[in-house]
Amino acid sequence: MGVKSFVEVHPDSHFPIENLPYGVFKPEPGSEPRPGVAIGEYVLDLSVISSAGLFDGPVLKGSDCFHQPNLNKFLEMGRPAWKEARTTTQKLLSLTEPALCNNASLRQKALVPMDKVQMLLPIAIGDYTDFFSSMHHAKNCGTIFRGPENPIPPNWFHLPIAYHGRASSIVISGTDIVRPRGQGYPSGSSAPYFGPSRKLDFELEMAAVVGPGNELGKPVDVNEAADHIFGLVLMNDWSARDIQAWEYVPLGPFLGKSFGTTVSPWIVTLDALEPFICDAPKQVPPPLPYLAEKISKNYDISLEVRIKPAGQEHSFVVTRSNFNHLYWTLTQQLAHHTVNGCNLRPGDLLGTGTISGPEPESYGCLLELTWNGEKQLPLAETSRKFLEDGDEVIISGYSKGEGYKVGFGTCAGKILPSLP
Amino acid sequence: MGVKSFVEVHPDSHFPIENLPYGVFKPEPGSEPRPGVAIGEYVLDLSVISSAGLFDGPVLKGSDCFHQPNLNKFLEMGRPAWKEARTTTQKLLSLTEPALCNNASLRQKALVPMDKVQMLLPIAIGDYTDFFSSMHHAKNCGTIFRGPENPIPPNWFHLPIAYHGRASSIVISGTDIVRPRGQGYPSGSSAPYFGPSRKLDFELEMAAVVGPGNELGKPVDVNEAADHIFGLVLMNDWSARDIQAWEYVPLGPFLGKSFGTTVSPWIVTLDALEPFICDAPKQVPPPLPYLAEKISKNYDISLEVRIKPAGQEHSFVVTRSNFNHLYWTLTQQLAHHTVNGCNLRPGDLLGTGTISGPEPESYGCLLELTWNGEKQLPLAETSRKFLEDGDEVIISGYSKGEGYKVGFGTCAGKILPSLP
Repeated sequence: MGVKSFVEVHPDSHFPIENLPYGVFKPEPGSEPRPGVAIGEYVLDLSVISSAGLFDGPVLKGSDCFHQPNLNKFLEMGRPAWKEARTTTQKLLSLTEPALCNNASLRQKALVPMDKVQMLLPIAIGDYTDFFSSMHHAKNCGTIFRGPENPIPPNWFHLPIAYHGRASSIVISGTDIVRPRGQGYPSGSSAPYFGPSRKLDFELEMAAVVGPGNELGKPVDVNEAADHIFGLVLMNDWSARDIQAWEYVPLGPFLGKSFGTTVSPWIVTLDALEPFICDAPKQVPPPLPYLAEKISKNYDISLEVRIKPAGQEHSFVVTRSNFNHLYWTLTQQLAHHTVNGCNLRPGDLLGTGTISGPEPESYGCLLELTWNGEKQLPLAETSRKFLEDGDEVIISGYSKGEGYKVGFGTCAGKILPSLP
Repeated sequence: MGVKSFVEVHPDSHFPIENLPYGVFKPEPGSEPRPGVAIGEYVLDLSVISSAGLFDGPVLKGSDCFHQPNLNKFLEMGRPAWKEARTTTQKLLSLTEPALCNNASLRQKALVPMDKVQMLLPIAIGDYTDFFSSMHHAKNCGTIFRGPENPIPPNWFHLPIAYHGRASSIVISGTDIVRPRGQGYPSGSSAPYFGPSRKLDFELEMAAVVGPGNELGKPVDVNEAADHIFGLVLMNDWSARDIQAWEYVPLGPFLGKSFGTTVSPWIVTLDALEPFICDAPKQVPPPLPYLAEKISKNYDISLEVRIKPAGQEHSFVVTRSNFNHLYWTLTQQLAHHTVNGCNLRPGDLLGTGTISGPEPESYGCLLELTWNGEKQLPLAETSRKFLEDGDEVIISGYSKGEGYKVGFGTCAGKILPSLP
């Protein structure tokens, strides 16, 4: 792109002018939540920019979409609004445009140091769906839970499998997670036990944020699905493997997942990710016509999970993966979701499922990394089979451009002990 | 109770003064949605009663909970508000209280003929959960899908199994349902097909409406769970059996359900259902302590499903069941849902799952009634294996008191043909 910002941005920053992800924040504890865009170590307050009359394009002029406590109204406006907002903010933040750069009092009001703000959930999430789109993850889980013969269920290669998740317990990065209690059933025992989960896990995921929805009964064509996706966040779909293993037959995961799901605060737009588009994997057998795309896109996004063990100062990388390991694309997921007429609404969240790569070092959860606790995962002087109280899990991710990164920041959460 | 209303109510009406269920309606097409209470063939407009200052008890005085487009604010206020509203409306509608009865202009404004109003979804539903609490249904489905040996999964007797459902596609009674398209996989075939569902079904259910929620990480004790339940509605959890059978392993039902779920417009309160409490079934093995209730309550609610076939004038009863066939109680469902720390919010919906009784005439869906299409269900001069385009399914239910009924009205929906 080559545009430079008057805001100084370190080359390692996740938030250069090429990115401009959207979030919702409070500049001070007592203030109202409002949308913002990240730039270097600052947040650009969009409510201030809007009040100053600087969103003067044909779509956004006069709109109150940046005077809302969440991004839903902006999401609903669709790609024309998103394009215009991106063009306007990039221009305002550039070195060559004086409107913000040369207006000291406006700059003072509009650019808030990131370390001073409180980030909030950027969207009101109506429904949250979680897919199961990494073949490596599906294969490893199938082998662990059902044995090495035909570990991947026969439907997996024909449709992007998914389940409805719990929207109420989605929290913003930095929120502590209380270890869930529940029933488990160790193999060989005659009765289930009840207590704090003994197999608490993270899941390295990303999630798509839905823009304009669709009417009930009116599916979205797979080749138009991209216009319904605003952007992506990092997601940790915390999982209690003992609770999940006992409860999931025949209706799927429930309490093993619904105690908490953490998302990162910044939504990186598909527009910002465009330079990092790569080919999606070849699908064999070919998908049914309603899932066959003219162009099938994946994204090259490096992902990493670190654990900061209780009482330690440092965190340790436990896995490195990449978004491009996914078999089903975001647009196939969205088209499949609506093909039965199901309606999506602005702000709905579509998780990818755990993003595991082919190598053991790229597995996206402890279930796979320790093979359901059969082996220890070393963390410097300690080790883990599953998460312990006090452990903090930190997911990060970025795409690498020439001399810059388009990053997602982090998605972090710490485990608190269970209730007595 | 013995209170009589000045509004004339037929002994067969579902809405005598003993009931007083809550809904949300528009008196005229252009008007704002507002809460109301059903009485005979009228709706009492609670916004009018509130504006007239007649909610003058300590909890509701000055509240704007009846000037909202849904009941969520009233639900959040909890049982003290619900008790006070019930006492106040019963008094106002009684023969002996002049405030409404003798004020002709207020009566004219506040009592709207039911056949003139448009009923709306009474709640904004954050999350919808569907349980699987009828043993007969679990056994029949297990036998059909997995064979007669151990049809009920081993976890079933230890926990109320459930899955997260889709909130966005919940619609009010009277909304047409478009036949979903999707993938199916007939046994013996080598590839899945795509098209309109060939096995469209209804499911006879009821659903609890959550009142005050709980904080994330703070479970609700089973003996306090009743204070979190406002009341019940009828529910039809439409199901596409071919889509469901192909997609549900390993993450549970998804597109086979998410194309539509119909609820009845009137929420009957637990207070109104109190005279119809009956013993819950004895649970063997005894539930774990967190599910063991001091008093385990069920409700005697007669349920009936009729089908009005396409092009016919009459509807035919296809099954008769009763709420008291459920094995897991509403309060056990709610306590289990939160035991892992999952937070419920006012207006959340907890479906019971299909309510099948022990006899074939009391099975709650066509899957069971026709044994997955193995036999025809006769409907006068025609018959059904599954639903056909144009079929209307009508669920109704009531509890029978001495000389009156506490009823739910109907929950109806008609099948429209699939998209081309």
